[in-house]
Amino acid sequence: MFPVTLEDIHHAAERIRPYAHRTPVFTSKALDKMVGGHVFLKCENLQKVGAFKFRGACNAVFSLSDKEAQNGVATHSSGNHAAALALAAQIRGIPAYIVMPKTASEVKKNAVAGYGGQIKFCKKTLASREATLEEVVDQTNATVIHPYNDYRIIAGQGTATAELLQDVPLPDIILAPVGGGGLLSGSALSAHFISPKTKVIGVEPALAADAAKSFRTGKLQPPFPPKTIADGLLTALGDKTFACIREFVDDIVTVDENEIIEAMRFVWERMKIIIEPSSAVPVAAAIKQKIPCEGKRIGIIISGGNVDLSQLPW
Amino acid sequence: MFPVTLEDIHHAAERIRPYAHRTPVFTSKALDKMVGGHVFLKCENLQKVGAFKFRGACNAVFSLSDKEAQNGVATHSSGNHAAALALAAQIRGIPAYIVMPKTASEVKKNAVAGYGGQIKFCKKTLASREATLEEVVDQTNATVIHPYNDYRIIAGQGTATAELLQDVPLPDIILAPVGGGGLLSGSALSAHFISPKTKVIGVEPALAADAAKSFRTGKLQPPFPPKTIADGLLTALGDKTFACIREFVDDIVTVDENEIIEAMRFVWERMKIIIEPSSAVPVAAAIKQKIPCEGKRIGIIISGGNVDLSQLPW
Repeated sequence: MFPVTLEDIHHAAERIRPYAHRTPVFTSKALDKMVGGHVFLKCENLQKVGAFKFRGACNAVFSLSDKEAQNGVATHSSGNHAAALALAAQIRGIPAYIVMPKTASEVKKNAVAGYGGQIKFCKKTLASREATLEEVVDQTNATVIHPYNDYRIIAGQGTATAELLQDVPLPDIILAPVGGGGLLSGSALSAHFISPKTKVIGVEPALAADAAKSFRTGKLQPPFPPKTIADGLLTALGDKTFACIREFVDDIVTVDENEIIEAMRFVWERMKIIIEPSSAVPVAAAIKQKIPCEGKRIGIIISGGNVDLSQLPW
Repeated sequence: MFPVTLEDIHHAAERIRPYAHRTPVFTSKALDKMVGGHVFLKCENLQKVGAFKFRGACNAVFSLSDKEAQNGVATHSSGNHAAALALAAQIRGIPAYIVMPKTASEVKKNAVAGYGGQIKFCKKTLASREATLEEVVDQTNATVIHPYNDYRIIAGQGTATAELLQDVPLPDIILAPVGGGGLLSGSALSAHFISPKTKVIGVEPALAADAAKSFRTGKLQPPFPPKTIADGLLTALGDKTFACIREFVDDIVTVDENEIIEAMRFVWERMKIIIEPSSAVPVAAAIKQKIPCEGKRIGIIISGGNVDLSQLPW
C-alpha cells in the first residue's frame, strides 16, 4: 500500500487551510467548444507564490515538530518550490536555506529573497547543488524538503484535487502536468480515494517525455535534455512519485511545443488569466484530443502562473 | 433628479442575471502593500466578451419590446461595446448591425463576427461612421444603442458596482476609469444609492484628460488626440454621462502613460490576471497615491481584459 492515505491528504488540507488560498475553478464556453467537453480549470496560478507548490511546501513545513522546525528547512531549487518553501518557512517563523545556481534569473532570486529565503549559491551542475545543500545542512541542521519525492509534499499537492472534487463532483478525467510527479501523484491519490471512477492522466511535453517513458517501460528514466518551454517539467520522477504514478495513474500522454504555446495563448486571450507553459501542457492535451474528450467532464490542474513577461513565446 | 434610479439598476441586474457573469472580486497582499490600503478588484475582465460593456449592452437589448427588438440593434464602435452588443443581440436572437472602419484590426472584426454581428464598413472619420449608421437604420429600422450616452447603458454598467458593494460593504473609495463615462456614471449612481458615504473617483490618462477638464470647468470638452495606450478611454463624455458625473462623482484624477504600464504589468505579474491598459488606469491611481489611500478600503472596477498579446507595451 502506498504510504500516503486519504487521512494524510485531509490532514494536509487542515494544516495549510489558514495559509493557502482555496483557489477558484474557472470555466469557459470557448474552451469547452475547442475541447468538445466540459472543462474545469483548478486555478493554482492564483495560489500563493503563483503555483500549487505552496501546498506541498506548506504541508511539509507545518508537519515538522517545533524541535525540528527551529533549525529551518533547506532545498535546492530555483523554481516555484524554492519560493513556496521560503514563504511557508517565513509564515512559520523559521529560516529557509535555498541552494540555487549563481546563474539563476534575477526574477527567481528576487522571489525567494522577497519571501525571506536565504540564498546559498552553487554552480549549475547537480553535483554542485547537492554538495552545497549538504554543506548547508551540516552547518545548520536544517531539514531538507525535496520538491516532489517526499510523502508530505505529495499529500500537500493532493489537496488541490481534493478541493476540485468538492467543487466539481465526479469528473470523468483529471489532467495534470508531470515533471517530478508530485502534483500528478497527489492528484491521482486524491481521485483514487475520493472519486475512484475518475481517470487521472498525466501530460508531459514530448521534449521531456521521461515520465511517459518510465510509465510505459516500468523503469525510471533519467531526465531529457532541458529543451521544452515548459520549464517546470524538466525534472525526472523520483522513486516515490514513480511508485505512486505506476499504481494510481491511468496514462501519461505528450504534447508538442507549438501545441503548448497555442493552448497557453488561448487561455490568456479567452480566459484572461496568466498561466505558465507547464500549465498549458494539460490544456493542450484536451484541445488536441490526445485523449478522448468528447462529451466528457474534465478537470485540469493549472499548476502555476509564473512567467517572464519580457520573454513571451509569441 | 437624474433619470436613472436605484430601481432601474435593480431591474438591469435582474435583466442581465441569466446572461452575464457575476464576476469575482480579487485581492492581493502585494497590491495592498503597494497601495497602503485594502484593494478589491471587481474583475470585469472576466465578464462575457472580456469587458463590463456586456452589462450595459445586455440591459439595453433586453429592455426593448418584442416589436422594437425584431428589427435589431445597431451601433458604431470597433471596441468592446461592439462585441458586447453583438453577443447580447445573438442571445436575444435579433440582428446586430455594427458600423466599423475598414481599417479596424482583424481581432476586433473577428470578435464581432464571432458573436454573429453584421459588420457594416465605413471610413475612419466620425462623419462617415455616423452617415453609415444612419443608412443602416434607414434600411433596417434597427434601434441605435449608443456605447455610453444612454440611460439603459448607464443602469447596466451600474450593476458592477452594485455587486461589488454586496461583496465588499462600505468601501471608502471606488475608482473607475473614465472614457465616455458610462461605467463611471453607473458606478457613481450605484454608490450614491447603496453606499452614500463611499467616494467615487474617476481616473483618466493624462493624455486623454478631457473628462477631468470637463469636470473642473463645468463645460463638456471635446476628446483629446488619440495618444494614450488606454485605447478604451479615448472618447469624450456625452451630455447624459456628464450630467451624471457632475452630480454624483467626487473627483477625477489623472495618471501618466508609464504609470499605467507599470500598474498593468504589476497586476499581470502578481495577480496572474490579464487586464487591458484602460483597467490599469485606476490601479495606477491607487499605487501612485493620486488620492490618499493609506488605510482605506478601495474598490476598483477592472473594466476589461482585451489585449493584443502580440503588441505588449514592455
